[in-house]
Amino acid sequence: MKLKNLTFAVVAMGVASGVLAQVKPEDQIRYRQSVMNVMGRSFGALNAMAKGEAPYNKDAAAKNAAIVEMMSGLPAPAFGPGTDKGAPTKADMKVWSEGEKFKTAYEKMVGEVKKLPAAAGDEATLKAQVGEVGKACKGCHDDFRLKEARN
Amino acid sequence: MKLKNLTFAVVAMGVASGVLAQVKPEDQIRYRQSVMNVMGRSFGALNAMAKGEAPYNKDAAAKNAAIVEMMSGLPAPAFGPGTDKGAPTKADMKVWSEGEKFKTAYEKMVGEVKKLPAAAGDEATLKAQVGEVGKACKGCHDDFRLKEARN
Repeated sequence: MKLKNLTFAVVAMGVASGVLAQVKPEDQIRYRQSVMNVMGRSFGALNAMAKGEAPYNKDAAAKNAAIVEMMSGLPAPAFGPGTDKGAPTKADMKVWSEGEKFKTAYEKMVGEVKKLPAAAGDEATLKAQVGEVGKACKGCHDDFRLKEARN
Repeated sequence: MKLKNLTFAVVAMGVASGVLAQVKPEDQIRYRQSVMNVMGRSFGALNAMAKGEAPYNKDAAAKNAAIVEMMSGLPAPAFGPGTDKGAPTKADMKVWSEGEKFKTAYEKMVGEVKKLPAAAGDEATLKAQVGEVGKACKGCHDDFRLKEARN
């Protein structure tokens, strides 16, 4: 299982993998979906600013960038062995069968997200970085997220 | 609707209420559930350390405390008018009919959670503060969270 070494930013986040390993697959699936939901809401707020659909607000941009950054590393260990099923999920089986490719795509996202907080202080810089993060999100979703949930 | 003034820590977090107001009730319900799930996972890690079920780890404690703190204010605006239904939810209707009481219980939680990051650096202090946060969580859940989800 190539994902055995999938530590990413999560270990750096200090979330003990031992604790996560005790969690049931369905709860790990729900956890990663929850993190993605929280991350998506805040990234959506940044994206709205970048697109001019919402007014640029420096404080709101900083806070949402911090939320996206904090969330970005959390799902990684919840994609571990045995979490490919157990609850409806849009995770493609390629997450597990093409683990190295998934890891690369995931880490690309984490790397771009890390630049968001610094970019949030300036509207033009934020807009550019939101674009880079969006591409990284899409890159991973195109290859590893199904359009419909499977059981 | 007493919750009209329910701004809590979320506005301080810079999440524009205008953006949230455009979100469908079912998505607001899913969002608050997602935040609670992420918060619960990290609080669970802290609680395990406090109970001696997991070894105390200063870095893991700090990171999980930061996650809990960041999450704590986010659900508030997602309990706004019109979000009492739209998807299965354990939120008691008293959230809306007894808005001031809910606000007080919610803010008690936020207040105790704010002390977690500083407490995380010392095992005994963390243990004591985890107890206080746990009581605040329970206080709100006892009164405002149903045991089973309703539609």
